[in-house]
Amino acid sequence: MKALEEKILKEGRIRDGNILQVDNFLNHQIDAAFLIEMGKEIARLYKDAGVTKVLTIEASGIAIALAAAAEMKVPMLFAKKHKTKNINPNQYKTVVHSFTHGTDYDVVVSRDYLNEDDVVLIVDDFLANGNALKGLIDLTNQAGGTVAGCAIAIEKGFQGGGDALRAEGIRVESMAILDAMEDGHIRFR
Amino acid sequence: MKALEEKILKEGRIRDGNILQVDNFLNHQIDAAFLIEMGKEIARLYKDAGVTKVLTIEASGIAIALAAAAEMKVPMLFAKKHKTKNINPNQYKTVVHSFTHGTDYDVVVSRDYLNEDDVVLIVDDFLANGNALKGLIDLTNQAGGTVAGCAIAIEKGFQGGGDALRAEGIRVESMAILDAMEDGHIRFR
Repeated sequence: MKALEEKILKEGRIRDGNILQVDNFLNHQIDAAFLIEMGKEIARLYKDAGVTKVLTIEASGIAIALAAAAEMKVPMLFAKKHKTKNINPNQYKTVVHSFTHGTDYDVVVSRDYLNEDDVVLIVDDFLANGNALKGLIDLTNQAGGTVAGCAIAIEKGFQGGGDALRAEGIRVESMAILDAMEDGHIRFR
Repeated sequence: MKALEEKILKEGRIRDGNILQVDNFLNHQIDAAFLIEMGKEIARLYKDAGVTKVLTIEASGIAIALAAAAEMKVPMLFAKKHKTKNINPNQYKTVVHSFTHGTDYDVVVSRDYLNEDDVVLIVDDFLANGNALKGLIDLTNQAGGTVAGCAIAIEKGFQGGGDALRAEGIRVESMAILDAMEDGHIRFR
């Protein structure tokens, strides 16, 4: 999506350690009108996939997932990062490893809102190593649902998570894929 | 907003302890098209308020805040619940007491995205005792910004938080106000 690549170049900042900071429009302050446009592009890409539900994970995936779901006229469901050790029998649960924070955390969705009739589009703001997406795919599989594919705002291609999912046959559509960040320069795929 | 009252009566469930459960359309699974409609109503109510930014708190406020901000054509900013004790000098910080969890937690926003020129509309999915809103008002005040008012999906009027804010002169617009929940019946204001 050309408009996102241009926005990253214009508004994104590269921090030490090859960290792209886009918290001015994507994951802290949010350019709402632009996210609605990304939602329309995601809906266009998946218009023939029979999607019945958009699934994301709190917190920063919620905005783009809402935009996509509104355009596709399906419900959005956000998985919650679980803090308690209490087991709720009415939830599907998976474990996601965060490289950023060096910890594992539980991710849950209610069994009431995901089932075997669902064709699920998984949406998130970022894709790096792919662990969050794998967790959401696992939740969908536990429910017996079908994964239509994934839609991501920004994929860090050089971290390999997206290509690993594609190699498994999962459709992954990213609005922008960064293949390299070096010396403050970004190369898009 | 009549449509929300009808939706609460039709789809909401009252649990033990007078807890209204709306996680089938508002705060876990989300009726995206309906939230866009609520965003339009919020934009209509505040169309003459000169709003420059919509402010909410993660996670379940993000969806309705995005819908309002998109319609108002202003950025949305979501405050983060802070887990670390590290002090970041580039953040405004406040403390919110959660009655639900019986704990205090830090809430932060970057100083980059809130300043004295901002006219801030505070948006959230629920209003009960008003502590989260008070925290967001405090963050806006720290930045020297102006609070245009608050916009809420569901206010639990019987918990008094909304009326306390109104008594302080803060504009609070709730799409539905529940004045009583007794024996499974809901009375709207």
